[in-house]
Amino acid sequence: MMKPEDLIARYRRTRQATEAIAAPLSAEDCQVQSMPDASPIKWHLAHTTWFFETFVISPHLASYRSLNDTFKILFNSYYNGIGEKHPRAQRGMLSRPSLEEIYRYRAHVDQALLGWLEAHQPDSSITALLLLGFNHEEQHQELMLTDLKHMLSMNPLDPIYRADGPHPADAALAETRWLSFDGGLTDIGYDGRGDFAFDNELPRHQALVHPYRLADRLVTNGEYLAFINDGGYGNHALWLSDGWDWVCQNSVSAPLYWRSLDTGCHSFTLEGMRPLSLSSPVCHVSLYEADAFARWCGARLPTEFEWEHAIRSGGQLDQVQDSVWQWTSSAYLPYPGFAPAAGAVGEYNGKFMNQQYVLRGGSCATPRGHSRASYRNFFQPDKRWQFTGIRLAK
Amino acid sequence: MMKPEDLIARYRRTRQATEAIAAPLSAEDCQVQSMPDASPIKWHLAHTTWFFETFVISPHLASYRSLNDTFKILFNSYYNGIGEKHPRAQRGMLSRPSLEEIYRYRAHVDQALLGWLEAHQPDSSITALLLLGFNHEEQHQELMLTDLKHMLSMNPLDPIYRADGPHPADAALAETRWLSFDGGLTDIGYDGRGDFAFDNELPRHQALVHPYRLADRLVTNGEYLAFINDGGYGNHALWLSDGWDWVCQNSVSAPLYWRSLDTGCHSFTLEGMRPLSLSSPVCHVSLYEADAFARWCGARLPTEFEWEHAIRSGGQLDQVQDSVWQWTSSAYLPYPGFAPAAGAVGEYNGKFMNQQYVLRGGSCATPRGHSRASYRNFFQPDKRWQFTGIRLAK
Amino acid sequence: MMKPEDLIARYRRTRQATEAIAAPLSAEDCQVQSMPDASPIKWHLAHTTWFFETFVISPHLASYRSLNDTFKILFNSYYNGIGEKHPRAQRGMLSRPSLEEIYRYRAHVDQALLGWLEAHQPDSSITALLLLGFNHEEQHQELMLTDLKHMLSMNPLDPIYRADGPHPADAALAETRWLSFDGGLTDIGYDGRGDFAFDNELPRHQALVHPYRLADRLVTNGEYLAFINDGGYGNHALWLSDGWDWVCQNSVSAPLYWRSLDTGCHSFTLEGMRPLSLSSPVCHVSLYEADAFARWCGARLPTEFEWEHAIRSGGQLDQVQDSVWQWTSSAYLPYPGFAPAAGAVGEYNGKFMNQQYVLRGGSCATPRGHSRASYRNFFQPDKRWQFTGIRLAK
Amino acid sequence: MMKPEDLIARYRRTRQATEAIAAPLSAEDCQVQSMPDASPIKWHLAHTTWFFETFVISPHLASYRSLNDTFKILFNSYYNGIGEKHPRAQRGMLSRPSLEEIYRYRAHVDQALLGWLEAHQPDSSITALLLLGFNHEEQHQELMLTDLKHMLSMNPLDPIYRADGPHPADAALAETRWLSFDGGLTDIGYDGRGDFAFDNELPRHQALVHPYRLADRLVTNGEYLAFINDGGYGNHALWLSDGWDWVCQNSVSAPLYWRSLDTGCHSFTLEGMRPLSLSSPVCHVSLYEADAFARWCGARLPTEFEWEHAIRSGGQLDQVQDSVWQWTSSAYLPYPGFAPAAGAVGEYNGKFMNQQYVLRGGSCATPRGHSRASYRNFFQPDKRWQFTGIRLAK
Repeated sequence: MMKPEDLIARYRRTRQATEAIAAPLSAEDCQVQSMPDASPIKWHLAHTTWFFETFVISPHLASYRSLNDTFKILFNSYYNGIGEKHPRAQRGMLSRPSLEEIYRYRAHVDQALLGWLEAHQPDSSITALLLLGFNHEEQHQELMLTDLKHMLSMNPLDPIYRADGPHPADAALAETRWLSFDGGLTDIGYDGRGDFAFDNELPRHQALVHPYRLADRLVTNGEYLAFINDGGYGNHALWLSDGWDWVCQNSVSAPLYWRSLDTGCHSFTLEGMRPLSLSSPVCHVSLYEADAFARWCGARLPTEFEWEHAIRSGGQLDQVQDSVWQWTSSAYLPYPGFAPAAGAVGEYNGKFMNQQYVLRGGSCATPRGHSRASYRNFFQPDKRWQFTGIRLAK
Repeated sequence: MMKPEDLIARYRRTRQATEAIAAPLSAEDCQVQSMPDASPIKWHLAHTTWFFETFVISPHLASYRSLNDTFKILFNSYYNGIGEKHPRAQRGMLSRPSLEEIYRYRAHVDQALLGWLEAHQPDSSITALLLLGFNHEEQHQELMLTDLKHMLSMNPLDPIYRADGPHPADAALAETRWLSFDGGLTDIGYDGRGDFAFDNELPRHQALVHPYRLADRLVTNGEYLAFINDGGYGNHALWLSDGWDWVCQNSVSAPLYWRSLDTGCHSFTLEGMRPLSLSSPVCHVSLYEADAFARWCGARLPTEFEWEHAIRSGGQLDQVQDSVWQWTSSAYLPYPGFAPAAGAVGEYNGKFMNQQYVLRGGSCATPRGHSRASYRNFFQPDKRWQFTGIRLAK
Repeated sequence: MMKPEDLIARYRRTRQATEAIAAPLSAEDCQVQSMPDASPIKWHLAHTTWFFETFVISPHLASYRSLNDTFKILFNSYYNGIGEKHPRAQRGMLSRPSLEEIYRYRAHVDQALLGWLEAHQPDSSITALLLLGFNHEEQHQELMLTDLKHMLSMNPLDPIYRADGPHPADAALAETRWLSFDGGLTDIGYDGRGDFAFDNELPRHQALVHPYRLADRLVTNGEYLAFINDGGYGNHALWLSDGWDWVCQNSVSAPLYWRSLDTGCHSFTLEGMRPLSLSSPVCHVSLYEADAFARWCGARLPTEFEWEHAIRSGGQLDQVQDSVWQWTSSAYLPYPGFAPAAGAVGEYNGKFMNQQYVLRGGSCATPRGHSRASYRNFFQPDKRWQFTGIRLAK
Repeated sequence: MMKPEDLIARYRRTRQATEAIAAPLSAEDCQVQSMPDASPIKWHLAHTTWFFETFVISPHLASYRSLNDTFKILFNSYYNGIGEKHPRAQRGMLSRPSLEEIYRYRAHVDQALLGWLEAHQPDSSITALLLLGFNHEEQHQELMLTDLKHMLSMNPLDPIYRADGPHPADAALAETRWLSFDGGLTDIGYDGRGDFAFDNELPRHQALVHPYRLADRLVTNGEYLAFINDGGYGNHALWLSDGWDWVCQNSVSAPLYWRSLDTGCHSFTLEGMRPLSLSSPVCHVSLYEADAFARWCGARLPTEFEWEHAIRSGGQLDQVQDSVWQWTSSAYLPYPGFAPAAGAVGEYNGKFMNQQYVLRGGSCATPRGHSRASYRNFFQPDKRWQFTGIRLAK
């Protein structure tokens, strides 16, 4: 169990990290919602605050007064158990409260929560909620970067977020090595080392993994370009049926953010428009593209169990958590015996276990220390605005 | 012909009036686009500037340098003759340029244009373009208010624009008097008195008007409430077929911005949520509602020719240009012999003469002096976010 | 007033003409609804029967028993005053009643109506309803041909309706002559000569027509091809704004049913796929295309008043009622003093006077004798599946 | 390996069974497509014929001549490897070829294939294609019944297919018994007993099944009614997030085909409208409803491995293959080492392994002998027009 002063320090650090991401942005930058999947930066700033207010302070500190009762509705993301929610697609319509007022809202909640933490010894259930709040806010830190990137990418001015914005690091272009694993009955899920895991990593259970091989590194832009040049987007035989429909209906011909300029292939990044680096991991591909690429080169995507087994086997894998998320072929489903937490907080993960695929690893936009071997990220197979890439299996 | 110093003064006045409307608003308020029909305030500020830059300065001042070449695309509304346009529905996506940069853009163009005007005697064609620019910017001043009202109305916080925001004035609740007009062959269109008219008011021509009667005042909220209480929205026999479909598909049961609260009927205004004034003119109704209301009380809407004829006859009409626009039963079509101006500026009006209805008069949001007896405003019959009301005929 | 035996003969003739159109078709041909605008042949056969049943027999013959009470709902087109309606877009879902049962329904109503007519002297109000029923059924005879053509055109087998299906006749390719008319105050609307007019042709009233010129013949396929070859579909300056959007969104590049084959330009007809005849009138164009074509050749479309005035002036016009309908620039609006009939039958025309344009004349698919100088046909400006063409004015 | 005479007999039997399903239907009944998911009966009759023509005759019998080359396109369902396809949603537009012509097409292919089979000893690859064709046609026999049911259900006349149409049999209303299974490492997939399995049942492989309990019978209408009466459709906490959106957006409040009549709860069946039998298995529920129901009663859906393990354990389960398909919680994904067949026939199953759930068992509409313990049926989680029900696990 964490000590109170560690909780306080962690709270401060988490909250500051969120604000540091927003710091280079104008009030206008923080206002825009570029698609229903994404949220305005302003909304992220408020919703992470609402989370601590709703699940920690309000139920435990009787004297607490909200800054504005309507915020309970405006900044509720998807917790039906809490009550009414402002429609997700209309988050960008809310010019009020202003960015400044939202910073006041953050300060108001911070003050109440820190004052209370300093005066009371948090028990284990409070500690668990605080840790959930920290990890929740870290997830939104990554979403702020991906949502922002999507929004800036729609602007013909090719705006720059920061000269040193997060991006997947280049890697030396060595040949892929195929690491062999015997598999067998293996433990899957959170092993209890560390202070936190999401409920979707539990319960820890045995799974059977058949022998497999895994690429030691991620697929690069250069390799993906070869797939494109070989007509990959025009060859129906490489694609899942829904994937082929998605390619045809959306005229997809390259990863998201790739642009063909007169001066060669570029990609839009948080640092503005940049020439494509062939040795960087390919990024912003859908599950459909990852799956088609794998089929094209005679491989396949790993299952989430293979991925986790390989990590736990100490298997010399590169680019695990600091580059791009790695699509797996596993549907996002509950582990045997999974039970969500009681109450509204139980809506966090369980109700989304449908029609999504698991991604493993982490990305250059993931806060350091946030992910782990048992971490399960998840998105629909056509989504591309996260930092998502490809690790191959056989 | 206007004197140069008058043109300069008018330019300054017009530009300042636009900025005065935006003055009470935050950068966030100026960023949001609440629907494709509406534009962000920021965009209005830039587009009106683009208009002078594109049609006046750029073609006539060879030394002029644009602040940013991409603005030519970003702030082009619908002029195919000028070139590429940023998609209308994505105007709210542009967090850059910031509000501050747009004010710099305004200053940049103002400085260039005023410097040039002070140094050159504008000929009649330049004068005509400047007058078009003034009137164009005045139209956007009204749109800024209506677009803003729509945006604020979507916010559950019921925000206030200004404590003294524009609204249709209350009128003493006298009985409607029916003024009789003989009609006959009458001149329709701009009569040349004044310094400007839009091309859609021309050519002046004869029209035949049959004898008619016109209400001396507008329909009030109280009268419209009687229509609602009599089941007007549920009686198909009162509605045009498209209107009935519109009512059913959108579950329409009151004018836009009316809200039924525990404390009685309210309406959202630029001054926030206000109790409904029964003696105020009904406002924010569609052509379909205006037409159904007229049928309900045994009357009809006037034609645009009847309306103009009555005004020219000096007919003792109240609430002509300062309250709400008045739907007519006339389709928005070209006058006999109508020819748009040559070049891209000819796209201003002519290409929209299809599937819209004419509104006459003016509203509380129309800049003083902007409208006139021959003025033709026009919207699709289901639109309600303008200040639109009802004057009856028989 | 028509004599009873004439009414009986006219009834028999009208009903048989409808069935003659369906005679060459299979049960499957009569089942399909190819778009919400069109109806299955089977439904036309039933609805025209329903019309006589609902407006003539049921209210006047107490002893009449319907074959099936649900038919009242299934075959109600748009009469809210009658009651519930089967959804328009689902007319093709109704495999039952079968075609055979619908012929029994026709016979059932025919027998009841003819028996009653033979036994009772119809008064003037009954006579008026019968005449409305005849003209209503004649309108559906034309719709059967146009709906069928649309359905067959979607079949890659290029099916043939009849070897001698209706099509606009070729005309000798003389140069267009421009006939001049002085206009002035002129009577518009049904003149009472003949036994019937629709309510939308009334009341007869004076209108002012300015001097104009009218082409003596229709625009040909050859002339329209020159417009296409000159880039007409790619030149925004020729199009109404909505028309340009329609062209771009639907990638329109030729009249409906034109097909570019290896062996040259063809057109799908009721006689199957045929080489395009350059001297035939261009057909299946929208108002948008008609308007753009007119602008391209420095002309315009006539108003409906000019068209009617020219006909009444005995102006030597060709191809008036037997070729293709002629788009006018007039919005479909009520004549001054128009009042629909009382009751549900009043829904026939009035409630559709919105967002449509008037077409004048008649087509090769119009039953002989159905149209007249005052006849007002009407469609939305993007509709093309009727036999619609172009007569120019200046 | 089957003997030639057995193949011939099986071919005849399969083809006749298909035609027997269509026998009670009119040409109109066979024409209609009620939604894009469903196909016209006529199309099923043709497509199953196309399958034998395309994959068996055309590649092997050089002298074979097609009846009509366009059929190759019209009746291709989803085989991109074969070439062009008529758009799925437009199958109901094809009034030609007529039902009669399609029976001629069936006879043409039957004659060619049977003649060839009688003259040549089919090798193992031909035999495999024939067996695939038989099983393919059996799947379409079930689809014909479900597509027909959907189409007839949209008709306000509540039509009857057959007085003795297939329906899930009533079962004695004994309490559910929970059968316990130890699980462990178990073999999953087709065991080679029998003459055929689809490729998606292969390869046979080991899977780990944790201890579980399974209901010996299916959930009944009566039990499902208790869920409804307890407010199941209004309690968000029971639903997956996508399921809750689906319920709200479609106002779902009961299984498909349930109707609340004055005389009590009814259900539309192939025998027309019938009072709901409380002891019959609940049918036409989506995965979302099955999952919510299970959560409501403190249970869950079985995985496909648990289901198959229980069957193989000889576990005294009732209503396995003759009642309704049973939703599992397993995503439809390839088994480890799965490889589709080479060529277009490989598109049969593999490309659909995405965003669907596995159903196990069989239904009253499944041809006898078609299913087996390893059989994997699959649909999207919102689909309800198949005979789909619920078996609970714990």
